[in-house]
Amino acid sequence: MVNEKFSPDEESLDRNPMVSDGLNPDPETLLKEDTINMDVLKKLVGQSVLSVDQFDKELVLEVCKFAALLESTEIAKSHPLDGKIIVTAFFEASTRTRLSFESAVLRLDGKIISISDGKSTGQAKGESLNDIGEMFNAYGDCVVMRHTETSAVEEILTHLRIPLINAGNGSGEHPTQSLADWFAILKWKPELKGQLKAENKIHLGILGTPGSMRAVNSFLRMSLLFKDNIKQISIISEMADPLGEELTNKVKESGITIHITNDVNEVVEDLDVIYMNSIAFLGDSYKSLDSRFKLDSHTKLKDDAVVLHPLARLDELDPILDDTHHNLYFTQAHGAVFVRQALFISVLNRFNKLPKEKIPTA
Amino acid sequence: MVNEKFSPDEESLDRNPMVSDGLNPDPETLLKEDTINMDVLKKLVGQSVLSVDQFDKELVLEVCKFAALLESTEIAKSHPLDGKIIVTAFFEASTRTRLSFESAVLRLDGKIISISDGKSTGQAKGESLNDIGEMFNAYGDCVVMRHTETSAVEEILTHLRIPLINAGNGSGEHPTQSLADWFAILKWKPELKGQLKAENKIHLGILGTPGSMRAVNSFLRMSLLFKDNIKQISIISEMADPLGEELTNKVKESGITIHITNDVNEVVEDLDVIYMNSIAFLGDSYKSLDSRFKLDSHTKLKDDAVVLHPLARLDELDPILDDTHHNLYFTQAHGAVFVRQALFISVLNRFNKLPKEKIPTA
Amino acid sequence: MVNEKFSPDEESLDRNPMVSDGLNPDPETLLKEDTINMDVLKKLVGQSVLSVDQFDKELVLEVCKFAALLESTEIAKSHPLDGKIIVTAFFEASTRTRLSFESAVLRLDGKIISISDGKSTGQAKGESLNDIGEMFNAYGDCVVMRHTETSAVEEILTHLRIPLINAGNGSGEHPTQSLADWFAILKWKPELKGQLKAENKIHLGILGTPGSMRAVNSFLRMSLLFKDNIKQISIISEMADPLGEELTNKVKESGITIHITNDVNEVVEDLDVIYMNSIAFLGDSYKSLDSRFKLDSHTKLKDDAVVLHPLARLDELDPILDDTHHNLYFTQAHGAVFVRQALFISVLNRFNKLPKEKIPTA
Repeated sequence: MVNEKFSPDEESLDRNPMVSDGLNPDPETLLKEDTINMDVLKKLVGQSVLSVDQFDKELVLEVCKFAALLESTEIAKSHPLDGKIIVTAFFEASTRTRLSFESAVLRLDGKIISISDGKSTGQAKGESLNDIGEMFNAYGDCVVMRHTETSAVEEILTHLRIPLINAGNGSGEHPTQSLADWFAILKWKPELKGQLKAENKIHLGILGTPGSMRAVNSFLRMSLLFKDNIKQISIISEMADPLGEELTNKVKESGITIHITNDVNEVVEDLDVIYMNSIAFLGDSYKSLDSRFKLDSHTKLKDDAVVLHPLARLDELDPILDDTHHNLYFTQAHGAVFVRQALFISVLNRFNKLPKEKIPTA
Repeated sequence: MVNEKFSPDEESLDRNPMVSDGLNPDPETLLKEDTINMDVLKKLVGQSVLSVDQFDKELVLEVCKFAALLESTEIAKSHPLDGKIIVTAFFEASTRTRLSFESAVLRLDGKIISISDGKSTGQAKGESLNDIGEMFNAYGDCVVMRHTETSAVEEILTHLRIPLINAGNGSGEHPTQSLADWFAILKWKPELKGQLKAENKIHLGILGTPGSMRAVNSFLRMSLLFKDNIKQISIISEMADPLGEELTNKVKESGITIHITNDVNEVVEDLDVIYMNSIAFLGDSYKSLDSRFKLDSHTKLKDDAVVLHPLARLDELDPILDDTHHNLYFTQAHGAVFVRQALFISVLNRFNKLPKEKIPTA
Repeated sequence: MVNEKFSPDEESLDRNPMVSDGLNPDPETLLKEDTINMDVLKKLVGQSVLSVDQFDKELVLEVCKFAALLESTEIAKSHPLDGKIIVTAFFEASTRTRLSFESAVLRLDGKIISISDGKSTGQAKGESLNDIGEMFNAYGDCVVMRHTETSAVEEILTHLRIPLINAGNGSGEHPTQSLADWFAILKWKPELKGQLKAENKIHLGILGTPGSMRAVNSFLRMSLLFKDNIKQISIISEMADPLGEELTNKVKESGITIHITNDVNEVVEDLDVIYMNSIAFLGDSYKSLDSRFKLDSHTKLKDDAVVLHPLARLDELDPILDDTHHNLYFTQAHGAVFVRQALFISVLNRFNKLPKEKIPTA
């Protein structure tokens, strides 16, 4: 059994063109008749990326355009992250997210030192994250951390003096995932950069419980930045109060109609974007889901609806959808590497390392 | 206690000369009065390396000659794998094999992202290898995978679009190990490249159960490619039917005499090459072995017999043999890095990065 | 919550200036009106670093001056460890020490292959360290090893032919930690390089049991090299005979007054340097400590006393001290990377790769 699907060109220094099942929108659509505003990106210099609350719509768009540029252009030869060491501190293990960040760094010639599992660290023995933060100052230029405790970000920042990228803190946030999510959505519908006509505004469905699921929490918060283009958000959750007080108020203030249901089929025919999740992944227990929380061949998806899923998935998103134009989740996964590269170059102030002639600035 | 055995030369950029106990045949013997056929090696471009069945004798020889070239020449300065990311996905942990592949890549200036243990991955939680394959497309240029399940290779290839190097799949195959095995054998007896006279054909002993031990399975299959130079294969196994039906037929078709015994001492005095294994390593249970499956100071080895062992070893191969000319297993281990380099350069089509003047082509 | 403490300069290729809580002595004080004796450092070429017993005062000073040079100068652009692979073999897991070594190597453009936990290795299944040593010869240029067994160093050296840096072997030694410890002490009081007047000699307090704690053992042995500048060593330990016979004799021969107590408060008012430890870390059990083995806001520290601690810490060193001039332990942690770099460049004989104009040689 041989794999004949890929023929690496001698000239291709690094990336494999995205030729995937499902929808593969060209990243260049995000750059068409547009420029990248470096002044906006420079706000990220030296900053940690901890929460979606640090982002306004403008910054999200510039990061996504920058990611589109990185995805469509050969940047690597300029070695943007040369000399930089990034610490991937995954006290809560996650192969997918860790490899995504590591690939992002290595493609740009940065270097990685890694904790892939917290179980064998001093942290497991009771060492404080404060001291670990002080230690990281000595070893690297930037930390990417995932941790089971929501308070971990605050703790490590008492002593950490280099930028921290939050890759997931307990039931808190996962901001880079949301950037990857919206990068995919904007590639699918670049008009979302501007102002949609009323009849074209989108109905967004989110499966999950923002109050306790960090990727969902961050995604909802980032979606509120696009409130002018969203007509309704439907939350599909088993919980009676899936948002909690703070988020409920934020949504109210946004003026977007919000609907809560415990059955995706109740709203799916009107959904333009469906953000799927493995509800079963709450903690480590696996629960059997029923059709109220699944998408499969029976689901009455709108013709041009698109599905997102941060992956990993179990049963809630049937692979039968992989080969359809509803599948935006592979694009979502592929694009995550580029938004992370955009963040690293910005946070570590390596704009000067980019080939200027390739950047469409105003 | 200081180690005075090695004095690194300021000029030596990377490799330490192979100065080991046991037999250390010069890799250049493989290249003497011979050339490397690049057209044959180019068949590997973009291919996955999954099974010995993909190889004919010609391809094995070219890969081994290429490995000999890499072992005897300073190639690294040309940075052959610059810009390439290899994912070492060891869902089944194996320090030896993983470090061998990683060293092979790093010496050639490629980069590594790594899963060293499957226990803390989404795979452990039930995520499908299909999705993991899709994910790897986004992160690297080539995957090296070891997995406890034989079906893992087929599963990941449903979505993987970059080349896969099989580093061991359940009880399936371990093709790169066999290349390392035969690389060692060919260095010991380069005449095996051609046609031996009848009286010089070799008697090969294989300890283990090909039907359930992947390295043994692959080694036997690769040995059949050299059938014209093998007079007999003796299988030393506890099992009544160690080959299974498919292999039994393959061996029959080859015309090689096959003998099955459960006591190595019954045949050892006539064996030219003895392929040892840790039978005790079947699964994770350790069984005590007796002298029927061991080589030690009592074993009546033929004068110029050579021993192979993919290592790790327990009691079945006594260290008393390390310092003898029977020891080809250290050469075998050292050479594995170079056959793996040969595969990477071929699969990733980086022939143009080699210093042309150093390649003896026709 | 954003981190505004660090603004990476576009020009800063690699290191973040050490701006930490506590005392931050300038490394350049170690180089003032002094030179580096390369002939002394060249004694380390091709050597393993296993025990403090390999060091005399002169070699300790040259390594520390070299580390000071690396800390205060931009060396990395000359890629000193280009082409070298270092194997970090942490059979006993230790995130702090492993990342310290890995950062040291990567900053100098060397490469890393890593075992971060021994549990999933063949070693766990019973494979001998002898064979692992033979394997490492094929994969790298230098090994950094930490192991739970004291005998591990001797075992691996039966076959290892590349230099070994001992990062902790059972209850044996931890020589690079001691170099980091004394690097910090010398930065604090550079006059210790020479000869102090009698009234200025220091009283050194060591909390822990040298006989069973490797970092303490190595630190005490290295301190004896500075015997001419030490008036007294006080050991604070629960054990009746914390030194054991060999160390007791060594201390006697040095002529230094030694005092043993089980209460730090008995001596602390006279201590100039206090080497703290987590006694509770003996093995993996956590015991509650009382004030006899702690430093906190109540402790009557001498005005200009400094505290060291190899970290990680639990309760024995109160964070209230972090912001005081007694805190030399953050300097100690930061400096560890540079002494390790000094060792790698020396052991791997890469002096020629340093920018000559920056080295203050005689």
